[in-house]
Amino acid sequence: MALTERVREILGWYPADNPGTVGNLARILMTGRLAGTGKVVILPVDQGFEHGPDRSFGPNPAGYDPTYHPDLAAEAGCNAYAAPLGQLEAAANRHPGVLPLILKANNADGLGGPPDRYPAVTATVDDAVRLGCAAVGFTIYPGSDFRNEMYAEIRELAAEAKSLGLAVVIWSYPRGHGLDKQGETAVDVISYAAQVAVQLGAHVVKVKPPGAHVAKEESRKVYEQHGAQLETLADRVRHVVRAAFGGRRIVIFSGGSAKGRDEILAEIRQIHAGGGFGSIVGRNSFQRPKQEGVALLQEIMEVYAGK
Amino acid sequence: MALTERVREILGWYPADNPGTVGNLARILMTGRLAGTGKVVILPVDQGFEHGPDRSFGPNPAGYDPTYHPDLAAEAGCNAYAAPLGQLEAAANRHPGVLPLILKANNADGLGGPPDRYPAVTATVDDAVRLGCAAVGFTIYPGSDFRNEMYAEIRELAAEAKSLGLAVVIWSYPRGHGLDKQGETAVDVISYAAQVAVQLGAHVVKVKPPGAHVAKEESRKVYEQHGAQLETLADRVRHVVRAAFGGRRIVIFSGGSAKGRDEILAEIRQIHAGGGFGSIVGRNSFQRPKQEGVALLQEIMEVYAGK
Amino acid sequence: MALTERVREILGWYPADNPGTVGNLARILMTGRLAGTGKVVILPVDQGFEHGPDRSFGPNPAGYDPTYHPDLAAEAGCNAYAAPLGQLEAAANRHPGVLPLILKANNADGLGGPPDRYPAVTATVDDAVRLGCAAVGFTIYPGSDFRNEMYAEIRELAAEAKSLGLAVVIWSYPRGHGLDKQGETAVDVISYAAQVAVQLGAHVVKVKPPGAHVAKEESRKVYEQHGAQLETLADRVRHVVRAAFGGRRIVIFSGGSAKGRDEILAEIRQIHAGGGFGSIVGRNSFQRPKQEGVALLQEIMEVYAGK
Amino acid sequence: MALTERVREILGWYPADNPGTVGNLARILMTGRLAGTGKVVILPVDQGFEHGPDRSFGPNPAGYDPTYHPDLAAEAGCNAYAAPLGQLEAAANRHPGVLPLILKANNADGLGGPPDRYPAVTATVDDAVRLGCAAVGFTIYPGSDFRNEMYAEIRELAAEAKSLGLAVVIWSYPRGHGLDKQGETAVDVISYAAQVAVQLGAHVVKVKPPGAHVAKEESRKVYEQHGAQLETLADRVRHVVRAAFGGRRIVIFSGGSAKGRDEILAEIRQIHAGGGFGSIVGRNSFQRPKQEGVALLQEIMEVYAGK
Amino acid sequence: MALTERVREILGWYPADNPGTVGNLARILMTGRLAGTGKVVILPVDQGFEHGPDRSFGPNPAGYDPTYHPDLAAEAGCNAYAAPLGQLEAAANRHPGVLPLILKANNADGLGGPPDRYPAVTATVDDAVRLGCAAVGFTIYPGSDFRNEMYAEIRELAAEAKSLGLAVVIWSYPRGHGLDKQGETAVDVISYAAQVAVQLGAHVVKVKPPGAHVAKEESRKVYEQHGAQLETLADRVRHVVRAAFGGRRIVIFSGGSAKGRDEILAEIRQIHAGGGFGSIVGRNSFQRPKQEGVALLQEIMEVYAGK
Repeated sequence: MALTERVREILGWYPADNPGTVGNLARILMTGRLAGTGKVVILPVDQGFEHGPDRSFGPNPAGYDPTYHPDLAAEAGCNAYAAPLGQLEAAANRHPGVLPLILKANNADGLGGPPDRYPAVTATVDDAVRLGCAAVGFTIYPGSDFRNEMYAEIRELAAEAKSLGLAVVIWSYPRGHGLDKQGETAVDVISYAAQVAVQLGAHVVKVKPPGAHVAKEESRKVYEQHGAQLETLADRVRHVVRAAFGGRRIVIFSGGSAKGRDEILAEIRQIHAGGGFGSIVGRNSFQRPKQEGVALLQEIMEVYAGK
Repeated sequence: MALTERVREILGWYPADNPGTVGNLARILMTGRLAGTGKVVILPVDQGFEHGPDRSFGPNPAGYDPTYHPDLAAEAGCNAYAAPLGQLEAAANRHPGVLPLILKANNADGLGGPPDRYPAVTATVDDAVRLGCAAVGFTIYPGSDFRNEMYAEIRELAAEAKSLGLAVVIWSYPRGHGLDKQGETAVDVISYAAQVAVQLGAHVVKVKPPGAHVAKEESRKVYEQHGAQLETLADRVRHVVRAAFGGRRIVIFSGGSAKGRDEILAEIRQIHAGGGFGSIVGRNSFQRPKQEGVALLQEIMEVYAGK
Repeated sequence: MALTERVREILGWYPADNPGTVGNLARILMTGRLAGTGKVVILPVDQGFEHGPDRSFGPNPAGYDPTYHPDLAAEAGCNAYAAPLGQLEAAANRHPGVLPLILKANNADGLGGPPDRYPAVTATVDDAVRLGCAAVGFTIYPGSDFRNEMYAEIRELAAEAKSLGLAVVIWSYPRGHGLDKQGETAVDVISYAAQVAVQLGAHVVKVKPPGAHVAKEESRKVYEQHGAQLETLADRVRHVVRAAFGGRRIVIFSGGSAKGRDEILAEIRQIHAGGGFGSIVGRNSFQRPKQEGVALLQEIMEVYAGK
Repeated sequence: MALTERVREILGWYPADNPGTVGNLARILMTGRLAGTGKVVILPVDQGFEHGPDRSFGPNPAGYDPTYHPDLAAEAGCNAYAAPLGQLEAAANRHPGVLPLILKANNADGLGGPPDRYPAVTATVDDAVRLGCAAVGFTIYPGSDFRNEMYAEIRELAAEAKSLGLAVVIWSYPRGHGLDKQGETAVDVISYAAQVAVQLGAHVVKVKPPGAHVAKEESRKVYEQHGAQLETLADRVRHVVRAAFGGRRIVIFSGGSAKGRDEILAEIRQIHAGGGFGSIVGRNSFQRPKQEGVALLQEIMEVYAGK
Repeated sequence: MALTERVREILGWYPADNPGTVGNLARILMTGRLAGTGKVVILPVDQGFEHGPDRSFGPNPAGYDPTYHPDLAAEAGCNAYAAPLGQLEAAANRHPGVLPLILKANNADGLGGPPDRYPAVTATVDDAVRLGCAAVGFTIYPGSDFRNEMYAEIRELAAEAKSLGLAVVIWSYPRGHGLDKQGETAVDVISYAAQVAVQLGAHVVKVKPPGAHVAKEESRKVYEQHGAQLETLADRVRHVVRAAFGGRRIVIFSGGSAKGRDEILAEIRQIHAGGGFGSIVGRNSFQRPKQEGVALLQEIMEVYAGK
């Protein structure tokens, strides 16, 4: 299938990357039901590590099996599948060459430990290369006490990934002393988190859908002064996308905790209306029975396809 | 698009390779008009280096432009495009992520020099990685005085390529003191050349169509003793494919110098009938006007598709 | 254009550097409207990372687009453009070879975290090399609790940069327990901060314009004893420049938060009168509409050009 | 000075290179009297090494001094100055940052030795980096017995140079058993030499002006069959430029041994008419008294500027 | 002792070197009886390795003791002492810090072997550093069959030495198929050898005194055409010094085999008159009884001091 004009336009936003990296971005953009639209729906399954297997896979026990998820992604027509090292290794032979893989290279277990710790780096770029991944994924916590450590880690990882022709996806989750729970999804904070991720060199950024709350007094002033329109989720998505280099980076949104189909699709429609590039849909897809999960993912893709 | 059963079967022949390499083989097998059939038609353009630009591109001057060839490959629906370093660099932005690339890593200029030299290594695996290639390609001359040097070179190159998740394609051209012109395409010699290539660890082997000649007395004896059927090209192709690990390696055949459409298609039908995995079609495609080249490539693909 | 006598004189202050580094300093000094004068006006845009995208780009939303800033710098005729990794990558194809780039290699997000943290190292010297930068930029906080960590970071970064022929620009911002808000811009403190930066091996130092305040009792005594003239900003700039190796280093001054044109130009005239080598003008240029920003930058350059 | 449309077009031919390399190509294209035209005149002075100091500098003894040549290049307004290691080191402080340098990394002394030897590698990419060079230069002998060794050397050198943001210039001089003296400048052989250089990944290729002779029978057939127009030098230059990726690489021509002004300018006019990208003018410039050399270089530039 | 104007002028010829290397050159120029004059007399003792111990030390058996030579150099007031690894190690404690040492890093034994071999690399730059040497010394054979190997060795050695702040001294001895015995010291050949050495990046070059013979027809033509004055040794020395970057490199001359005092001093006077920078005096000094050796060295220095 030939690259579409839209995909060529998007690839043109990455003039500093080598052809390998650009090719892997193209592979993600040219795979699945949304191939060529410039939109992406990615299936991420790192919850086994992050939240534990039971919270993650209990609701749909088929998901304990690591071959379940790439099959789900392929069947639904996702652009890519993201997971930690072991999970990718365990299902490496399911869809080689046809389902782009993203190696989630840092992860935190939820077994306790100090509440303010940060994820461990659990895989290398070499792992991503030998597994044939299109990208490495990495979580940062802008605003946290461990910012410097995390930025140092992604700096090294991203530089190596880029030199080896891989793309870089950053999950940007603001947190820290200066942010309460509501603040973590405040529109100004999410915008800031997107900005930090692209400044660190991410090709693709994943953030949470921005809430109506504004966390910082300075942001409120700017919004008032310049009449920022932030009422609907679509407005706020548009704002966040703009905060990621004026729309010249691929910004996608998480679905968060499991909820009902209608609620999800309503949210997706807003993200689409606001110019979001797509979604990462984990629990809402793999915690449902397979056909329901496939159906929901495809309904989401329909929205992004503008149908 | 999901892997077909046939492609899964073929990938199963490479159990020692990492998922990156298997994925890149799959990418080649799942691209273009023959995607999923287990058959491959590859466009190789290293003749500018090997035969000089005028002999190569004079007949169809559009081919002087290095962006012409990947466009031809993509338009016709080839599985992959193979070329030397400079040519891949010059067209790196044409079809990133959708047209698998094979970096032809050794080349010989035809300007003279002693007749018994061997190709120079002109590119590195790192080049293939940064250019986003699916494979590296390499020519060997089994039987030549420089066998050891060439096998040493491919040994290093193949090992590095495999560790970085790339596939290895070997062009196996027997030559040397012990072989006259006819002997170079003798059926026993081509079979032997295919065997050497797979023993060196090639995932894909390219040989010339085997002639009816039998070059070695020992071979003749064995053939007579065991009643080898080698009359038609289809018979001989079947023999060569069997010589490459009993059919458990992808063996493809070159078309050689430019000739007429009917002659070519007749040959392809024989290769297909004999169980050949496909063809490398260079001069016969790019030395024709573009639409003729596309049409011929697609007619060839039709044959391999069994239509 | 040939090097001027003044530029040769300035380059003569760096006898320990290799020709690559001297050449990159020369490139900065020989670019733009001030080429050859020995004065420099640099456009820095790291506020997206440091203050967040909205506070930075809300006032002039064109600035959300990372191609806006290098275009602004080129159009106005700046000597160089400084930005974090992602922003340089995103606009790498705008003015290659003609607009010197400075990779801002450490950055702090302003999302919160403990108030006494220090910037994270967010890019490498290798990044600067592959992006074709003329220099790396780095922020230090002399006087802070994290002094040792920051000095260690710049020590490694500067050594590597110099060995690879890059120049080193240090943003020197004193802060810490021993300094209140007023103290951070006290003339003795700014002088000290400039001294620390050049002692760490900076080729170019950026400080804030020094205030009339004197923070340290010891400084006050020396000033009184030796009749230091520190009344006007010009006096204090002269003092700070002297503190940076008696004027044998390029010391430039920041403009700080956005203010009116007349106020800015009055300050620039003082810096020029005091022998300052130029200015870094960020928010005051890119937060205005483009033509206003260009006009202001050019008015500033007129002052430094002595017109 | 802003990049011109023509320079942007040329830079677009190198989509596989990092911004550092593209920037250094741009620096060469944006320097001197021909800045922005897409044409280049380079002063190369490696004759001291290749032909010996007396034959090279005897005619104009000022040239024994290694500071003479960069001054000549700068005064005339050349795009770049190319020389071996020692000569660049000795004049490193003449025009830092304003005159692009090309480190000629292999050289052969003409004191004797077997006639079929090949140049020694006399400098490293690290040398080029610390000297602030824009490119490395390298001579190859396509067709020679030492082809493999030379291609291996440039393969390593070019890969390292590209990773460090430098451009690669190849001097391509066919020679070997299969070529007599006339054959070395035959139009088909020069075309082939240009092709080999670009296949090896050169950004800029330097060849000798192609003669009317056709050395290879196969070439003659192709020319006759396709009606190649090769009568004038302009025709042949057009042919050679096409052989270097259809005009998508910068191909420049040497002037050869010293001759009269009118003869030189007539040749340059032909090269310009044929679409050549420029000239390397060594002996014809530095073996004249300085003002004559400057005048001749500038007359040559006038031709390329289309005046 | 302060640097003299003349030494400052000489150091100014090395603008590409780091302060460590320049400092080591300065140490050599500021040591001994000729300190500050810009002239140098160096004691080299590698004959034990090159000619065997008996031929070398038999005439004055005190020289079997490796502490003899540095004492001789120090007592006479030489600028530096050059020797192979073992010899420097054995006398390392004789004059640390006051007698500059040059580690002769390649050497050939004279026990036989093929007559056309080249010296072995017998020490490393690390050895030079740990022994506190000011420079490394290296012999090349321009024109020989082993040119490429030797240039590759000095390329690596010189690059490493310079990066570690050492100076590089090249002994340049032309030889090879194209040169008969007389040709090896022909004035044009010695000039060429000096040129090659400085192009390879030598700070100091040592050649044999040039004879009146002209070896190459091309040289003879140039000399006749341009009226080169080459009658006296002084004339020829002037010519050779000019061939080494127009006098911008330190060129010194060997004394050759042992001869009488008057003959030696006459030769030195000619070298001095021709602008030679000094001498390397081995056998003529250490094969005499110590006081005679000291006396002769000091008489030689008197000549260079212009007394």
